[in-house]
Amino acid sequence: MARRAIYPGTFDPLTNGHVDIIARGCQLFDEVIVALLVNPGKSPMFTVPERVEILNQVLTPRFPQVRIETFEGLLVDYCRQREVNAIIRGVRSFKDYEYELPMVLMNRRLNPDVETVLLVASEDNSYVSSSLIKEVFNLGGSIDGLVPDLVIERMRQKQ
Amino acid sequence: MARRAIYPGTFDPLTNGHVDIIARGCQLFDEVIVALLVNPGKSPMFTVPERVEILNQVLTPRFPQVRIETFEGLLVDYCRQREVNAIIRGVRSFKDYEYELPMVLMNRRLNPDVETVLLVASEDNSYVSSSLIKEVFNLGGSIDGLVPDLVIERMRQKQ
Amino acid sequence: MARRAIYPGTFDPLTNGHVDIIARGCQLFDEVIVALLVNPGKSPMFTVPERVEILNQVLTPRFPQVRIETFEGLLVDYCRQREVNAIIRGVRSFKDYEYELPMVLMNRRLNPDVETVLLVASEDNSYVSSSLIKEVFNLGGSIDGLVPDLVIERMRQKQ
Amino acid sequence: MARRAIYPGTFDPLTNGHVDIIARGCQLFDEVIVALLVNPGKSPMFTVPERVEILNQVLTPRFPQVRIETFEGLLVDYCRQREVNAIIRGVRSFKDYEYELPMVLMNRRLNPDVETVLLVASEDNSYVSSSLIKEVFNLGGSIDGLVPDLVIERMRQKQ
Amino acid sequence: MARRAIYPGTFDPLTNGHVDIIARGCQLFDEVIVALLVNPGKSPMFTVPERVEILNQVLTPRFPQVRIETFEGLLVDYCRQREVNAIIRGVRSFKDYEYELPMVLMNRRLNPDVETVLLVASEDNSYVSSSLIKEVFNLGGSIDGLVPDLVIERMRQKQ
Amino acid sequence: MARRAIYPGTFDPLTNGHVDIIARGCQLFDEVIVALLVNPGKSPMFTVPERVEILNQVLTPRFPQVRIETFEGLLVDYCRQREVNAIIRGVRSFKDYEYELPMVLMNRRLNPDVETVLLVASEDNSYVSSSLIKEVFNLGGSIDGLVPDLVIERMRQKQ
Repeated sequence: MARRAIYPGTFDPLTNGHVDIIARGCQLFDEVIVALLVNPGKSPMFTVPERVEILNQVLTPRFPQVRIETFEGLLVDYCRQREVNAIIRGVRSFKDYEYELPMVLMNRRLNPDVETVLLVASEDNSYVSSSLIKEVFNLGGSIDGLVPDLVIERMRQKQ
Repeated sequence: MARRAIYPGTFDPLTNGHVDIIARGCQLFDEVIVALLVNPGKSPMFTVPERVEILNQVLTPRFPQVRIETFEGLLVDYCRQREVNAIIRGVRSFKDYEYELPMVLMNRRLNPDVETVLLVASEDNSYVSSSLIKEVFNLGGSIDGLVPDLVIERMRQKQ
Repeated sequence: MARRAIYPGTFDPLTNGHVDIIARGCQLFDEVIVALLVNPGKSPMFTVPERVEILNQVLTPRFPQVRIETFEGLLVDYCRQREVNAIIRGVRSFKDYEYELPMVLMNRRLNPDVETVLLVASEDNSYVSSSLIKEVFNLGGSIDGLVPDLVIERMRQKQ
Repeated sequence: MARRAIYPGTFDPLTNGHVDIIARGCQLFDEVIVALLVNPGKSPMFTVPERVEILNQVLTPRFPQVRIETFEGLLVDYCRQREVNAIIRGVRSFKDYEYELPMVLMNRRLNPDVETVLLVASEDNSYVSSSLIKEVFNLGGSIDGLVPDLVIERMRQKQ
Repeated sequence: MARRAIYPGTFDPLTNGHVDIIARGCQLFDEVIVALLVNPGKSPMFTVPERVEILNQVLTPRFPQVRIETFEGLLVDYCRQREVNAIIRGVRSFKDYEYELPMVLMNRRLNPDVETVLLVASEDNSYVSSSLIKEVFNLGGSIDGLVPDLVIERMRQKQ
Repeated sequence: MARRAIYPGTFDPLTNGHVDIIARGCQLFDEVIVALLVNPGKSPMFTVPERVEILNQVLTPRFPQVRIETFEGLLVDYCRQREVNAIIRGVRSFKDYEYELPMVLMNRRLNPDVETVLLVASEDNSYVSSSLIKEVFNLGGSIDGLVPDLVIERMRQKQ
């Protein structure tokens, strides 16, 4: 039986913490959908097409099991439509766990056929969030080693 | 590719919280080894053969993918020997998460090929630990619905 | 001596988690004031009169000890004015507890005569917050069983 | 309607943190049973009669609503027998909350008629546990202001 | 060797919790730079010159080792420029610790020569944040004893 | 003014997590006393003289500011006797923080002249405790890179 998992996020920008969790997911599942949530209300650093292109360039050569998709609306509805068995979420700090717990329980209630799988992020990336990356970058700090090189390049072009 | 996971524990006694996590694991993996840790230093309520028999009677009819085994020594060594892809652990409270986090990181260091998968226990069983079960039972409280019926029966025989 | 407690909130909307805590409060106190905080700065889903009406329709038939009131300004000042002995707050997750702790200590400093009583929410409602309810509803997810039926009806009318 | 609450503990020894919670409970309930758990397995600093005597001398002059009792077995059974409405527990740190949460849920399951009320300890006593008191005292540190004077006197007699 | 530490913040307004941490820092270091972060995006209660003046009036007479400065941009860059050995941060609640932990790790990565020192706030001030102070004050509550007297005076002038 | 700090522990065995915190302490203080707590009640892996010898061999060549000492009784009394300004403690997980917080407050009460300084352990060592090291080693797992090489050598001699 082929197992398909989904790794949802806004990836604005993609960090090495995300890539680490995707690599772990690929060890566990036959197919991993990296699903970019299209959230019209937010004003992101990168547009949806820009983020899809970054995901494609960084992930496709390295992870043959990864498919990059976009979705709107309820995650569990998209899981049903795409016949997904598992939602992958990365956790490390207590703040992460605190944030994920009600989501896991709500998603389970909305769709009991999809199980959320919490994977522990690598130590090296444990404090790297997309928002902290943007804050440090905007203040002129180095983010080398915290995001893929392509992301740094594209962030510089945005300045 | 067949995916094999391991769910380690002492199961003294097996609770409905354990059964809930095993059911979730069976949705995600082709085979789930329920692995009873043989810990010579402890004085358990049930002997290892008694616990294996309870695991067999409760789990085998319900979960065809489950295999019940015993192991000694380091969990990650047993994972290597049994060609296991994933360690399943149930979490709910912060205490659980706090306990699991260093284990996940140490096991990853000892064997990077095995990924730990944290699954969130059902609300109904979130406060049920084997030790609390034993404490309540020994004080004469009802544990109906918190452990499989067979476990209650065997605990009564022990009194 | 009659004991009067207050259960403050914005109730936008009232959830079954709120109702659960109100029911527990009614077991402990002779009178429970459900006190809607009028917060002019926020843009709520329901107006204050709409929320008062929902509270009345849902709570009054079921809990004879409940009085529904609105207040502005400092909670502890309203407690003094209404001769209240206790503030009731529901907690479950660590996030809840983290949020409540400084409020308890600040309110105690501002008015040492009022004691805050933390009640643990039922497992079924532990992950249900008003904001998560609105988010799920707006994305088309089912909130049946998480809020009173009247609330679902009124939310549908708002769409 | 008279409201009766219970404050269970081992009180070995009684600390000012306990006294603080008892004082808060007396503001909320008509009667507060301070219930000493008789736990035959432990080797306490003070015997049960010694602890009852200390509780009586410290609490009775100050809190007319307090009754001092001893109990064995399951707390919720004793609550049923004594027609108690509420269990009072003091919390402050996250460790306290972590410890209380599964107890609250288990006790609720065993006896849904008794509600647990969590009261937040005063800042002055937030780090004072009976075991830390004993450890500091045994190493020669001052515990003045952390326990009632009578307790210090009796601890000195034990040395 | 002279040891120089930095205590960064927005101090809008300065609280007694801040003053407590500054006093503790002065016991540990030869010089403590109280560094006001100039954050152009925020709309503060007090302007930067007003806050500098308050810091000067409250801190200078009491702590000869304190220097009051303002900075923009990355804290660790300012540390390098000012030859600072240590960043001082006050913690008490878990929320504080959760907030500080990723900052400590990010700052260490950006500048491994500066160590962050976490000091535990006094019990009396453990729940006092600048934002809670403003909220209580705006609702008419007393903040006596939570901020220096000069701050109360200036807040009244702003009304 | 020379600043003297103390880093207390049982060091049974010394881990790279301890060494990391000692290195950070040496950046902040002129002298760091590594103070081995002599605890007669425990049955350690290494005797006190063995642990002192390991501390000497590992730390003395690398950290000229370190002095290795042993102490009995209350830490704050030893601080007074040795004219110490600061107690250094390493933290990383919430469990660490939870454990340290009451100690910090109790020690401050017992001796207000000594301030506790919490330093955040490096990511690489964040899950390494002496007891986990012993558990893994006893089950045959590799502890290379988690403790100094000398400690591995001495642990092998103990087997």
